[in-house]
Amino acid sequence: MPLEKRIVGIAGLGLMGGAIARAMGKLNPALILAHDIDSAVLRSAEQGGVIAKGFEDPVSMLSRCDLVFLCLNPSTLIRFTEEHMTSFKEGAILTDVGGIKESIAALADRVRPDLDFIPGHPMAGSEKDGFLHSEMVDFTGKNYILTPVQRNRPENLTFFKDLILRMGFARITETTAEDHDDKIAFTSQLCHVIAASLIHCERDTGITRFGGGSFEDLTRIAMLNAPMWTELFLENRKKLLERITSFEKSLDEIKEMIGAARAEELEANLSAVRNRRSAMAE
Amino acid sequence: MPLEKRIVGIAGLGLMGGAIARAMGKLNPALILAHDIDSAVLRSAEQGGVIAKGFEDPVSMLSRCDLVFLCLNPSTLIRFTEEHMTSFKEGAILTDVGGIKESIAALADRVRPDLDFIPGHPMAGSEKDGFLHSEMVDFTGKNYILTPVQRNRPENLTFFKDLILRMGFARITETTAEDHDDKIAFTSQLCHVIAASLIHCERDTGITRFGGGSFEDLTRIAMLNAPMWTELFLENRKKLLERITSFEKSLDEIKEMIGAARAEELEANLSAVRNRRSAMAE
Repeated sequence: MPLEKRIVGIAGLGLMGGAIARAMGKLNPALILAHDIDSAVLRSAEQGGVIAKGFEDPVSMLSRCDLVFLCLNPSTLIRFTEEHMTSFKEGAILTDVGGIKESIAALADRVRPDLDFIPGHPMAGSEKDGFLHSEMVDFTGKNYILTPVQRNRPENLTFFKDLILRMGFARITETTAEDHDDKIAFTSQLCHVIAASLIHCERDTGITRFGGGSFEDLTRIAMLNAPMWTELFLENRKKLLERITSFEKSLDEIKEMIGAARAEELEANLSAVRNRRSAMAE
Repeated sequence: MPLEKRIVGIAGLGLMGGAIARAMGKLNPALILAHDIDSAVLRSAEQGGVIAKGFEDPVSMLSRCDLVFLCLNPSTLIRFTEEHMTSFKEGAILTDVGGIKESIAALADRVRPDLDFIPGHPMAGSEKDGFLHSEMVDFTGKNYILTPVQRNRPENLTFFKDLILRMGFARITETTAEDHDDKIAFTSQLCHVIAASLIHCERDTGITRFGGGSFEDLTRIAMLNAPMWTELFLENRKKLLERITSFEKSLDEIKEMIGAARAEELEANLSAVRNRRSAMAE
């Protein structure tokens, strides 16, 4: 069934839910519906033409949707899906956009037999949150990680991957939930912990007069959504702690070279770092 | 004397020297001359109309210049200035663009009595280096730090500050060399150490498939000019080590909240971080 005949539902019309609704709008599905607990957000999205209709009560929306994007924080998402398990339309495809995947993969394994939950993680966002900032999120050229479960139907996976590329994403990586959570602990969560720690240790808000771009780049993501990141950090605690420890060890090695003024070793290591970073794709 | 009557000299036509030559070009000084040890760079700058004439031997250039930008690594700069002390034009203004200021302030204090050395630090750059990338450096809206010494002449300071703003910089902060080195240890050097440490602890160059912007932002500056940053780190060793230690303590506090799953405390701290970062000017 082509997208033009499918009804798309967004549960949670925040930053990512809003960005997905906007991207979907350009692809002409049969209808775009959304559920949110904030009626003002729903009215604004309706008036802006981002969605056809908003629902404060999810039940009547879920029963109509062929494809549902669950754009909720992980714990809320799990509770929401369990609670409304009987409300989803027969044979619907479900997917999520969350930053951790192991608990979501477990959920995907236990949804109603006719439903097909494909866990996903669009690697895009903004340091701002909420629907009102969703226009700022740009999917062009970004990564999308999928952690399919065994029971996902091949035809649904094919359909969804095609949709992801049509939304503007450049690369789809399929991997296990565990591998995702391990890599993301490094590329995303550790980076947020570092940015937060940089701000946590400096009380002078005038310090940016001494900024030349590096500090601004490293700490922009410190403007994080605190409840969401608290959940992500704690949910992926074990892997994140390993990554923090490994980073601390690495930092300590460089600190020692500086402390002992081992210029040649320091320069050789900085050169190696430069080369490795340059070898990494943007 | 207006800029239109002054001859400007650039010693060291790399990334910053090139960027300054280009910015000066738009302000119509009497002439722009440059010295570099790489004759290919000088020829390319001449052909591109960025400078009027390049000199491999600095002596004949220095004797003509009313304003000299010393765009060399700190140790080279100090050696160069000492070595050519007799070559500078009577009454010339000298300035530098380096990332550490205490040793430069000491140099500014001991130049020939008729010379006026105003130590400065334009807070702009690029992760690429060399003259060929100097076109990428944008001064618009950036910070410029000055750490004047007692003997700097007020009329020269006024002239130079006006010039900085005409180059496109938005804010000039005047402070002591010591304060500069302390703040820069945090906003610049620590950030580069962190970026380098992040790459130092990850061998998988395919990791960027799992990047969503944060990792890319935090590690772009890991593509650093290794010899220059080795010098900057070691020259400012004491203050940088203090900043690394304070960051490590801060990181450890957040790591502990995560490790002990103290959700409320973690969320409160992340909220505080978000608010403090938002309060900082960009």
